This record gives sequence, C-alpha cells and structure tokens, in this order.
Amino acid sequence: MTRKTTRPEEQSIAALLAPDILDLLETEPSAVAAETEELHPADLADVAERLPRSQIPVFLAALPVARAAAALEYLAEERRTEMLEAMSPEQAALLVAQMTPDDRADTLEEIDEEHAEDIVEAMPGPARRETEQLLAFEPDTAGGLMTTQFVSVTETETVEAALSQVREMARAGRREAMNTVYTLDAAGALKGVLSLRELLAAPEGARMADVAWTEVRTVAPTADREEVARVTQEYDLVAVPVVDDRDRVLGVVTVDDVIDAIQQEQTEDVQKLGGMQAFDEPYIQMGFWSMIQKRAPWLIVLLLGGMFTTTALGYYEDELGKAMVLAMFLPLIISAGGNSGSQGTSLIIRSLALREVGLGDWKRVAVRELPAGLTLGGILAVIGFFRIELWQRMWDSKVRIGTLPIGFDYGEHHTLVALTVAISLIGVVAFGALVGSMLPFFLRKVGFDPANASAPFVATLVDVTGVVIFFSVALVLLRGTLL
Amino acid sequence: MTRKTTRPEEQSIAALLAPDILDLLETEPSAVAAETEELHPADLADVAERLPRSQIPVFLAALPVARAAAALEYLAEERRTEMLEAMSPEQAALLVAQMTPDDRADTLEEIDEEHAEDIVEAMPGPARRETEQLLAFEPDTAGGLMTTQFVSVTETETVEAALSQVREMARAGRREAMNTVYTLDAAGALKGVLSLRELLAAPEGARMADVAWTEVRTVAPTADREEVARVTQEYDLVAVPVVDDRDRVLGVVTVDDVIDAIQQEQTEDVQKLGGMQAFDEPYIQMGFWSMIQKRAPWLIVLLLGGMFTTTALGYYEDELGKAMVLAMFLPLIISAGGNSGSQGTSLIIRSLALREVGLGDWKRVAVRELPAGLTLGGILAVIGFFRIELWQRMWDSKVRIGTLPIGFDYGEHHTLVALTVAISLIGVVAFGALVGSMLPFFLRKVGFDPANASAPFVATLVDVTGVVIFFSVALVLLRGTLL
Repeated sequence: MTRKTTRPEEQSIAALLAPDILDLLETEPSAVAAETEELHPADLADVAERLPRSQIPVFLAALPVARAAAALEYLAEERRTEMLEAMSPEQAALLVAQMTPDDRADTLEEIDEEHAEDIVEAMPGPARRETEQLLAFEPDTAGGLMTTQFVSVTETETVEAALSQVREMARAGRREAMNTVYTLDAAGALKGVLSLRELLAAPEGARMADVAWTEVRTVAPTADREEVARVTQEYDLVAVPVVDDRDRVLGVVTVDDVIDAIQQEQTEDVQKLGGMQAFDEPYIQMGFWSMIQKRAPWLIVLLLGGMFTTTALGYYEDELGKAMVLAMFLPLIISAGGNSGSQGTSLIIRSLALREVGLGDWKRVAVRELPAGLTLGGILAVIGFFRIELWQRMWDSKVRIGTLPIGFDYGEHHTLVALTVAISLIGVVAFGALVGSMLPFFLRKVGFDPANASAPFVATLVDVTGVVIFFSVALVLLRGTLL
Repeated sequence: MTRKTTRPEEQSIAALLAPDILDLLETEPSAVAAETEELHPADLADVAERLPRSQIPVFLAALPVARAAAALEYLAEERRTEMLEAMSPEQAALLVAQMTPDDRADTLEEIDEEHAEDIVEAMPGPARRETEQLLAFEPDTAGGLMTTQFVSVTETETVEAALSQVREMARAGRREAMNTVYTLDAAGALKGVLSLRELLAAPEGARMADVAWTEVRTVAPTADREEVARVTQEYDLVAVPVVDDRDRVLGVVTVDDVIDAIQQEQTEDVQKLGGMQAFDEPYIQMGFWSMIQKRAPWLIVLLLGGMFTTTALGYYEDELGKAMVLAMFLPLIISAGGNSGSQGTSLIIRSLALREVGLGDWKRVAVRELPAGLTLGGILAVIGFFRIELWQRMWDSKVRIGTLPIGFDYGEHHTLVALTVAISLIGVVAFGALVGSMLPFFLRKVGFDPANASAPFVATLVDVTGVVIFFSVALVLLRGTLL
C-alpha cells in the first residue's frame, strides 16, 4: 500500500505495471498476487490485456481465484471469450463461478453455446442453478441484467439484527447490490426498502417494518432495459429490484449495469439513426464481412427507395428537357427536405426515448412541426430567391474575379425560376419536418423501434415528394414561359 | 404505511393521490404531510405537477421543509424556476438551502440571475459559501456536477470509530454520497476509499489505512462530464471524488448525476447528428422561436452548401442537355453517397465518444472504410445495373399491368447508361464512407465536437463530389454516343 493515490490523467497504472508483472511471471509468480492486490479489477484486467496473449492465463492463475474472476469481468469481451474457450470446462467453471451472477450469465452468453453448457455443468450446484435461471431471461431485459445476490431481511426483525446480518454477508465476501436492503413479509413478498445509509441512521431497537420505505419502485423480469433505465434515473436509484407477479424479489439490477445498458442502447440508436443495423460489437473489433452485413441492407433499401425518385423524374422527362435549369436545382430542393426531415426525426426519436412525448402526443407535435417547417422553409426560400437573382445580376453585369466570370445565366425568366425554387423550398421543408417528426410515432405504433426512422430513410421518403412538389410548382409558374 | 408496495406499471401513484391532496389542501392542510410521508420525492414532485399551478406553493408549504426541498429537486425545471421566481428571496432561500448542494447550484443556475443572487444572499452562511463555490464551476464539468456533502475520515482512525462517525452523520440527516467513505492524511489529501459495505465488513479494531483501497480514481473539477461518465462506467463506481491539485477532496459526483449527464450528452449528440444545434430544454417545452433559432442555422448552412451542387451542375449544363437520362439518376447517385457517409460518420462519432477509437486511429479507420465503401458500392452497383437493364427489357417486350406500361426506355445506349450508373455508385459510396468516417476525426482535431458531423452535413459535402464523379464517368463512357 505504498503507491500514490492519484496520478497524472492518462498515464495508466496498468501500462506502468505490465512490464514488471511480465518479469515476475517468469521469475517469481507467487509474488504477483501481492504486487497487484491494491489494483481495482478494471486495472487488473488492463494489466492482463497488456501482456502477451499466451501469458494471460499464467497471470490469472497466479492470482487468488476471486481476484482472477473479478479481472475476468472487466476484460474486453473478445479476449474473455477467447480465454474461456481455450480452458477446460472445469477450469473455466472454477473462475466463472466466482463472478457475480449477472456478469457470469453475460459472460456465458458470449461464448460458444456448447462450451458454455459444459462450463455450467461443471459448476457447483447452487451456482449452476442460479446461472441457469439467469440464462433463461433475454439479455436486454431486467431479468437478463439482474444479479441474484442482494440483501433482504424479514420486516419483523430489528434494525440491529438486520445490520449484523448485513455485516455477516459482507464479511462472507458476497458482492454487489449491497447498498440497498429489502424487507420481506412472511410469504417472501417485497414490502419495503432502505439504503444502507438509512439502516445505519435508524434508531436502535426499531423494527425494520417501521423504518423502511414502503413505496418501492420495482420492475418485472421482462421489462426492457430502457424501462429499467427510466426508473433508475427518475428515482435516482442505485439498484432496482426485479419482482415476479407475487412481489417476490428475483434479483436486483445495479446502477453500473444500468449505465452500461444506457450506453449500449444509445450506441444502437445512433447507429440506426445513421441508417444501418445496430452493431453488437465495437466498430473496431467487428469483422469486415459482419460489418458489411450490417450496413448493406439499409443501403440497398435506400437505393431501391431512391429509384422511385428516378421513376418520378421519368414522368417529368419532357419538362426536364425544356427547362434544364430545373435539373440544376433539383438536388438543392430535395436535400433541403431531407435535412428538415432529419431534424424532425432526431428530435422526436430522442423525445420518445426520454418519454418527454408519448405515442398520444403525435397531434401536438404535428401542430408544432407544420408551422415550424413553414417558417424554416420560408427562411430558406428568401435566401434561395436572392441567391438566384444575385447570381443573375452578377452575370448580367459581367462581374469577374480575374478572368473568371462570376454568377450564372438562368435565362430571361430568372425571376420566375427563383420564385419556383423559393415556393418549392417552403413546401418541401414543411413536408420534410412533418414526415420526419411523424415517422417515429408511426414506427412505434406499428411495433418497430422509432430509432429506425434514420436520417437517410426520411431523406429518401421525402425525395420523391420533393420531385413532385418542385415540378408541380414549376408547371404552374413556368407554363407558357419555360414549360 | 398501508399502501401497496408495488402497482401496475403505468397507473402512477401521483395520479391516484393528487385529487385527495387537492381536497385536503382546502379542508385539512395539516394532514397533507402525513398522507404523503411514504412517497419518494420524485412522486411528491409528480403530485405537485398534477395540482393547479396556484396550489403548488400551498402544497409545498404544507410539507416539512426538507420534504418540500426534496420535491423541488424532482420538479420539472420550468415549473421549479417559475415557483422560485414567484417567491420572496427569503422564502426561496429557506427551501433551496435544504436541497443537496449540487442540486441547489443547478437550480440557481436556471433562474433569473439577479433573483438567484438575492436567494444566495438570503441563505445561512455555510450554505451560502458552499453554493457560491459550486456556482463558480461550469455546469458541465465535474465541479459543476459534484456535491460537497460526502463522508471522509482520517486514515489513522479505527474502523469502529469511522463507522460511528458515519452513523452520526447519517442520523444528522445529511444526504447523498454516503455509499463511499474516503480516507484522508493529516494534510487532508485523499489517501484511500472504501464502500460502506466494505466498511461494515472490515475487521473490528483495524485502522482505516489498512482496510481502504489506496488506488482511488479521481477527476479534476475542470474535467468534463464525458470524462466523469467514462471513469464511473469503467470502474463501476457509485461516486467519483473531485480533487484539487493537492489531492484534497472538493466534492463528489454521485452516480445519479452521472446518469443524468450521460442522458443529456446523448440527447445533444442525437440532435447534432440530426443537423441542428443542441436544445437546452425538452423539445415539447421549448418556445417556438427558440426552436427555430436552433434549427435554422444548420439548414441555411446546408442550403448554401447545396448551392455548390447547383454550381457544379452548371458546369455540366451541356452534358445534361444532351443526356437527359443523367438528370434522372442524379438524385439516386448523390443520395447513395450521402447514405454511405451517414453510416460512416455515425459509427465513428459513437466510437470516439466511447473511446473505442482515439484521434490517432484515423489511419486504421480509413484503411477499413475504403474497402468497406468499395464493397458496399459494388453491391449497389450490381443492383443498379440490373435494375436499369430489367426496366429496359420490360419496356422492350411491352410488359403491361392492365394498360399501364411497365419499365422505361433509356434509349439505345442503355447498357452504357447502366454501366455509368454502376461505376458512379462504387465511386460515390466509397467516397462517402471515407469522408463520413474521417470528418469526425477532423472536427475533433480542430477542436470541435465530432457530433457536429451530422448526417445532412456529410450528405451535402458528398453531393458535390457525387456530381463530379457521375459526370466524369459519363464523359468517359458516353463520349461519342450520348455525349
């Protein structure tokens, strides 16, 4: 216990320590445990990852089994899977059985199914049953996130008895989910909750039933991770109890797993918003072809969608032929609609995820987005109109930078062209805002994740309409002149 | 303590209780405190929000001041600001002084500056100094997130002495940040850390220095919230100590504030990714014109960017005139580039945020994205080629649905057109993937938030190049036939 408490930001302790550990493993493996005993398991895992791959099992073997298991919990998924698959089921079972039940289940879910079953088989009875129970839940639900190690006492006990029970459990080396104590009735149903701090503050001699809070926030084992995160955040909890339909506590989801779940959920949302399927591994670790498989489908769907734009343009072939200038502004018009739609969709996806708006609020949102879209479109219309007129003026007055002519000749009907672009911008931007904001509601309504309403998806939806709006406006304004 | 422990998911306790409370406020306000004493402060706030606006101050006044303060912490920002601005500074100070120091600072930052200063003035000395200290930090930094109420003991004390100190503090009604106990040396520098559970498990009579972990993860008060979140998540902490340059603890960031910070950060990232400035309020609460101000600037920038596409098309006016068919495929080609770019950019933004990749990894990413883009482009090219050929075949063989002709006549050089589209798709999709994935690196390098590399921004960047690639390919392949 001689090392410094704090250290410069990015000079990691593991980087400093790894070379020494590597030496020790060759010369005096028995000293490794003592050398690393003050390290947080996350740093222990970091040391392991800095060793040559072949030395990782040697390193873990040199640690007390509980420490090795803790390090394993923090190891990168890929490395951990690789390690466990290389061990015999018995060796692996020894380590895995020491992990907290929730991490144990997560770990086993990652590795080859057959090998995982052998490991479970090789575990001691109670750990095996615990693990089998957890593996039965979907990993993204409360049941899949929870640990089965938590502290509960019957509500008729005294504060002092409860406290000494907690101390006993803590001394027995049980881990996690001990910041909260749950009280149960005789039938084992959850009745109350108390933080460890509140237990310490409770008057001696009081009965647990008198000091515990009776309003307990719980979730069902089937609740999805978003629901768990919402409850945790709303009530500032450090643990959420998971109960069955008779209020018996099955386990507890701890806040560290909630944070991981929030981060994962967010990564998936951003990836979907970017127009692809959610990755289940970090970008840099994912295999090339797996990545292509996640990205290609949406690109293909969007290409097929984009072909409707081509088809729509086919209908306006004659007009395109007569008024070439329309073709030049087409990308500008349709991308303005896509951009506006992208704003609408990302606003609503996030508001739905945070429950700021619910499914029933679609009308309120529509009533807000339509005027917003018209206003934004109006602003762009003014800019677009003056841009065209300005370029024409510069062309007409032969402005030059050096010998390069500046501006553009939109022909004698330039003001009508500018007006066509301006009015189309208003229509397209307003339509984009409306479609973009309504699409997430629609997706949720029909049972999809609203996050699938990606920016590219909305843009493609809006493109066809952009073409129709643009040419319809043109047909009205330019009839008799250009068309 | 008679209410049921759990209840059906969405039937909120506050909704059930609010009408009763409203009655009580008129008939027997003194009974309100007892009626609500088991409620979590979040539910207490929920009840308040369901009352008529004029009754909220009456309701809060009917509660013990500590409960009223706790409810205030959970009240929606807007409502809380409104309430406090309506009170006299002395009334407000009484309530605000009871809040945890970090929530107090956050609350004061939201309200009118002058009124906030008056409230701080009216607070008792210690609370005032504490608050002034916290208000000096930026709200998005560790200093702005931390609370100054935490538990520390000198490392020479025994476990039992430390424990009774903790109990005393807990009984004195101090709140928050008590799941972790910090040990200090004689100079007040942070030496070790111990969870409350570990303190309970520690052998009686041991000195704190012997049982505390000496590897403590800390952050500087200026660390931004992303850094705090990263440390919390990496080490599964429930609190992160904030230390000055002499290792003295200034405060502690608790995990509930970390979760809020993560959610806020993510909301901002999604909004930026959607092509707008981050909102500082929930979508549904934001004023119409404030919202327009957040959305218009990027739309204008993107419109101006889109004009470069128009300019680029101006250079190809002659080619467009000769080969109308190119205009029809233009939106398809450039949006494929935008879609591919959107994938690349959202992947990298998220990987950078999670520190899966660092600034120095840009080369690794580029070496991965170029072949990925070429592969994805190749897939789209095959589909695009056959789509055009198929439509031509259907046209030639006069396929009809009813009387409607199916397919399209791309002219005698349709295979060359299909080839032009296919090759352009490969080029544009590969270019999109590369630009999309490199832009976040570039933005971070020059000091911007990578999340500003929104999908619409990337699409607009890629559009101009899409035009150039498409017409360049066309000029090579169609010269002598269409061009």
